[in-house]
Amino acid sequence: MQELKQSLGREQAGINSAIERFLDELPPNSQPPARHVLAAGGKRLRPFLTCQTGRALGAPEDKLHTLGAAIEMLHAATLLHDDILDNSELRRGKPAAHTLFGQAQAILSGDALLAKSMFIVSRLGDTRLTNCISEAVMRTAEGQIRESAQIRNSTVSYNDYLETIRDKTAWMLRASCELGALCSEAGPEMVEAAANYGMELGIAFQMVDDALDFSPSSLTGKPRGGDIREGKITPPLSLFLADQPPQEADRLKKAIVDDLLDAEAVEKLSEAIHDGGYTRKTREMAEAHLKAAADSLALFPPSSERIVLEQVLWYIQNREH
Amino acid sequence: MQELKQSLGREQAGINSAIERFLDELPPNSQPPARHVLAAGGKRLRPFLTCQTGRALGAPEDKLHTLGAAIEMLHAATLLHDDILDNSELRRGKPAAHTLFGQAQAILSGDALLAKSMFIVSRLGDTRLTNCISEAVMRTAEGQIRESAQIRNSTVSYNDYLETIRDKTAWMLRASCELGALCSEAGPEMVEAAANYGMELGIAFQMVDDALDFSPSSLTGKPRGGDIREGKITPPLSLFLADQPPQEADRLKKAIVDDLLDAEAVEKLSEAIHDGGYTRKTREMAEAHLKAAADSLALFPPSSERIVLEQVLWYIQNREH
Repeated sequence: MQELKQSLGREQAGINSAIERFLDELPPNSQPPARHVLAAGGKRLRPFLTCQTGRALGAPEDKLHTLGAAIEMLHAATLLHDDILDNSELRRGKPAAHTLFGQAQAILSGDALLAKSMFIVSRLGDTRLTNCISEAVMRTAEGQIRESAQIRNSTVSYNDYLETIRDKTAWMLRASCELGALCSEAGPEMVEAAANYGMELGIAFQMVDDALDFSPSSLTGKPRGGDIREGKITPPLSLFLADQPPQEADRLKKAIVDDLLDAEAVEKLSEAIHDGGYTRKTREMAEAHLKAAADSLALFPPSSERIVLEQVLWYIQNREH
Repeated sequence: MQELKQSLGREQAGINSAIERFLDELPPNSQPPARHVLAAGGKRLRPFLTCQTGRALGAPEDKLHTLGAAIEMLHAATLLHDDILDNSELRRGKPAAHTLFGQAQAILSGDALLAKSMFIVSRLGDTRLTNCISEAVMRTAEGQIRESAQIRNSTVSYNDYLETIRDKTAWMLRASCELGALCSEAGPEMVEAAANYGMELGIAFQMVDDALDFSPSSLTGKPRGGDIREGKITPPLSLFLADQPPQEADRLKKAIVDDLLDAEAVEKLSEAIHDGGYTRKTREMAEAHLKAAADSLALFPPSSERIVLEQVLWYIQNREH
């Protein structure tokens, strides 16, 4: 994992300076919320994937940081809007933008970021790139709408769940990789492999995230069972419920749908889910997607970037917080 | 004005069928709010300007309805977000989208519309077009942020007001005309003339709108003085205040800033503003911008479209509701 850490660090400077340059080009009143959310940190995973995928397939250096900055800005735009929709007060431990600047400025700054990022991509003059990010924005929005509709809904199937996280989380990661590949001379099969690597990685990323939600707070630093409290039915809970006697499963489902569980009940249920091996099972399901991502990656020509992209999969597999 | 009415009617069918086609391409859950706001009516003024400007300058027919649909969809996206920011319950007499679909779906549907419209434009393969609409989205957002910051603020100057309406309202109309011109073979001076026509028209449009806010409700069908109630200080009020004794002006400013005027006081003040000739003065100021728009239009080669575009200016000048 040494290579991954080093190249993440190396890449961040170039990506951040591209982001900085583009932020300066936003109209003055649209800048503060955008700067706030982009300064709040984050690993810059999406642009990192764009740059590494692009280089792995021989893309010229000049476009990669530009594209990476654009995808990070798009991601930031979705975060600005998300925090309003979810009524989140915090983002990575800091006040969410809308709590500092108000809802209006946060929504509108998000719109400006969206428009700016799409223009940055379009001026590279390749319609495939714009198509790719336009689709990613639409899919992300669609996944979020689906997710809201699935809150406190006990009839959501595993396929519904998969379709939602594919759109909500995985598509933007898919796009990040596809953008890099599209900058290279690689043929359509290789572009497809890059897109598929990003998509499967993204699905696994969200599933591991959903498993971690049930980890003891001593490990993650935050109260476990947040998804249960929000009424989100994710695989660890679904798998647990499927193993309960029908009456008990129905009682629990109803309690979650009707928001009747207090803090203690959520903690107890989370513990039962974790200790019963259902987070482990969820991680095993995620591993199938990481395996699919690795299979796509194996189609890439060997390179130091390919090694790093493989390490991204290990990193996701082994995340503990 | 007969020509204007006829060509508005003729154009709408083509524009609406293009919009319909693009709406079908949005992901399913993003469609309902978008369809709702686009079905709520409206004159389709922006796409109309795109088509007429384009034809006046000899643009080929094929791109015009596509571009027109894209600009109307962008406009719809801003309306979806606006109604949330302004907490508006109604849009053109019908329930605003967020009241029917919820805030989350309305914001996200707006994001999907934004992304889709920008892609529609970018796939036409001319970066100048994408630049034009990206700038328009950013300016519209910027103008709205400025406007929110100017609510219940008595120190807003006339130049502040002009800058705000230029961004918030006029820039999207400017872009509508510029897009049409960019589709033609016209040189940069002519594109600039088209953009300027749209910009000046847009400024005048907003000023007339702000004047109409003080018209007797018997004429407009809605209570007068809405802007005063919302704490917006527009030219009719500014001009009126400038003619009052300083103490009386200060008292009124303070009452507006502190939101102390009841319905009766707003009605009385609106009447004084209207009957004192301050809406007429505002319309005269708008006429200077219509004149500037006409001067730009005069650079166009003579055509039936140019006549119609001139009639748009008369229409704005003579709007009574």
